[in-house]
Amino acid sequence: MSKIIKIAVDAMGGDGSPKKIIDGIIHHFQKNKNTYYQMFGNKDKILNHINNDIPKSSYEIIHTTDIVKGTDSPLEAAKRGKNTSMWLAVQNVKEKKSDIVISAGNTGALLVISKLNLKMIENIDKPALSALWPNKKGMSVVLDLGANIECSPKNLIDFSIMGSSLFKSLYPNDNAKVALLNIGSEEFKGNEIIKETYQQLNLKKNSDFEFKGYIEGNQLMNGDVNVIVADGFTGNVALKTAEGTANFITGELKKTMTGNLLGKISSLLNIYNLKKFKARLDPRLYNGAIFIGLDSPVIKSHGGTDYIGFSNSLSVCTKIISGDLIQKITKNINQ
Amino acid sequence: MSKIIKIAVDAMGGDGSPKKIIDGIIHHFQKNKNTYYQMFGNKDKILNHINNDIPKSSYEIIHTTDIVKGTDSPLEAAKRGKNTSMWLAVQNVKEKKSDIVISAGNTGALLVISKLNLKMIENIDKPALSALWPNKKGMSVVLDLGANIECSPKNLIDFSIMGSSLFKSLYPNDNAKVALLNIGSEEFKGNEIIKETYQQLNLKKNSDFEFKGYIEGNQLMNGDVNVIVADGFTGNVALKTAEGTANFITGELKKTMTGNLLGKISSLLNIYNLKKFKARLDPRLYNGAIFIGLDSPVIKSHGGTDYIGFSNSLSVCTKIISGDLIQKITKNINQ
Repeated sequence: MSKIIKIAVDAMGGDGSPKKIIDGIIHHFQKNKNTYYQMFGNKDKILNHINNDIPKSSYEIIHTTDIVKGTDSPLEAAKRGKNTSMWLAVQNVKEKKSDIVISAGNTGALLVISKLNLKMIENIDKPALSALWPNKKGMSVVLDLGANIECSPKNLIDFSIMGSSLFKSLYPNDNAKVALLNIGSEEFKGNEIIKETYQQLNLKKNSDFEFKGYIEGNQLMNGDVNVIVADGFTGNVALKTAEGTANFITGELKKTMTGNLLGKISSLLNIYNLKKFKARLDPRLYNGAIFIGLDSPVIKSHGGTDYIGFSNSLSVCTKIISGDLIQKITKNINQ
Repeated sequence: MSKIIKIAVDAMGGDGSPKKIIDGIIHHFQKNKNTYYQMFGNKDKILNHINNDIPKSSYEIIHTTDIVKGTDSPLEAAKRGKNTSMWLAVQNVKEKKSDIVISAGNTGALLVISKLNLKMIENIDKPALSALWPNKKGMSVVLDLGANIECSPKNLIDFSIMGSSLFKSLYPNDNAKVALLNIGSEEFKGNEIIKETYQQLNLKKNSDFEFKGYIEGNQLMNGDVNVIVADGFTGNVALKTAEGTANFITGELKKTMTGNLLGKISSLLNIYNLKKFKARLDPRLYNGAIFIGLDSPVIKSHGGTDYIGFSNSLSVCTKIISGDLIQKITKNINQ
């Protein structure tokens, strides 16, 4: 039997918590019996939802009534002090009582509280916010998504190493293929920082990933590369634009398919196929973001996701710990 | 009868030219009898496709056998000299013999040849590449799409003025609503350049557009604003990511809809609705790009579009001239 994985869970973050969080834990536990959940939040409210769905030996509740609000600025959140469910959960990984921490709460607050509590991995200058993104062949890791608006070549190289380590933790049987998001595929395209990064990555002997050069926005989902590196401004714009485009198209499609009786009938006939389509693009599959660069990984689940989405984020936690993410980054950054 | 609009057409650019170009002209002429087409290229090849579909009084052919290749670098294209169909077409607007110039050829070459021949509009520092982009309520103008990788606040303000002037030329009955593409909607988000631009646009008294602040990537297609301003790097990444996402989703949808017999039958039943969907998102509707900031507008049709797409780009030409784009920009920049 493999090692028990201890997850510090902020049970009070995001819409519909703690019910959604607990339901997510119960769902996750079905297939991950080797997990121990440390839930931070209001004990009575949490217990209301657990019933007997998880054995008492697989969880504990650390009671607090203080919470970070979704509307708090990072500063306001930090000022709420060390007794919020978010702070206590982060502190638990700091004290090595948990392997990893997850919250569906306020993103900015989680980043700041994590940076206040956790140390950087040695030789990494800046942590990055990364996420999973579907492509024709599977999933890609994309970073940075907004933690660092301006980045140096060193930062972008660090992101390449961290992103490929994350990819290998999640998909141990695949090879990590890194590309820099740019506005052309020729070597001379882009700004000075991206060109300098290209030169350095090209010279670097990488044991853990293959550097594939530049990638343009329209190729992001081809699946030819699976680790996409950008500064936080560009990465954020790209991810959100993809999200907006997907919503726009599926919205237009929905209108079309149900616009008249014929549409309704044939959509009904086609419901099995449409369900498959929806499943393929289900945002819950790649819910949340992974904050990497600190000496413990911090997982941010989307505040608006449901318990299935939260359960998927818990699976990301399990895989990251089983895949030794932090050890991988430490090894690769010092090569 | 309104004034005849004279369009300089590079008949040799893009895939399938000159047939596609001529077919596009014939299609455009059906609804735009007040147009006079000046076609630059190989006279025999062009005449092969015209037959008697346009009266001789509505066009002329300026013969040349020199062409810019799709694979030319901008420098190589310029070195091919002043006898290429592209150069001659641009020169014709320079000499005020045409109102506007259009090419479906090499984008980089068209930008460089235009900059070499045409003057900047007074008080505009840099020209921008703009395009149309569908949203829930209609169309948006987006700029810059890659002509300027790094931009100052002055550049972004110029783009706001040029973009809203373009929007008003194309949609005279709508109000132009400008937003800056950013990674958050709060005033303090973004880099220094974007924050400074925000402050200046907020103070500016704009007679011709309303400044709506920041917009994030996921709101681009909501239709709340219709002029989206970014530096060329960010704009290019956003546009191409949207394109890639749209292709990915429609590809996945196609697989789903035709994956088995049931899918095939119900898609067949639903073909009318699917056609409506396709029509709504038809990329030919917003084909091409508009290069603005020079004292004549330059239109770039997509090289891969068909004659309908090219005809739509010709309609953009007609609207820009009827809408007095250059006069609008000149007036608004000096306010």
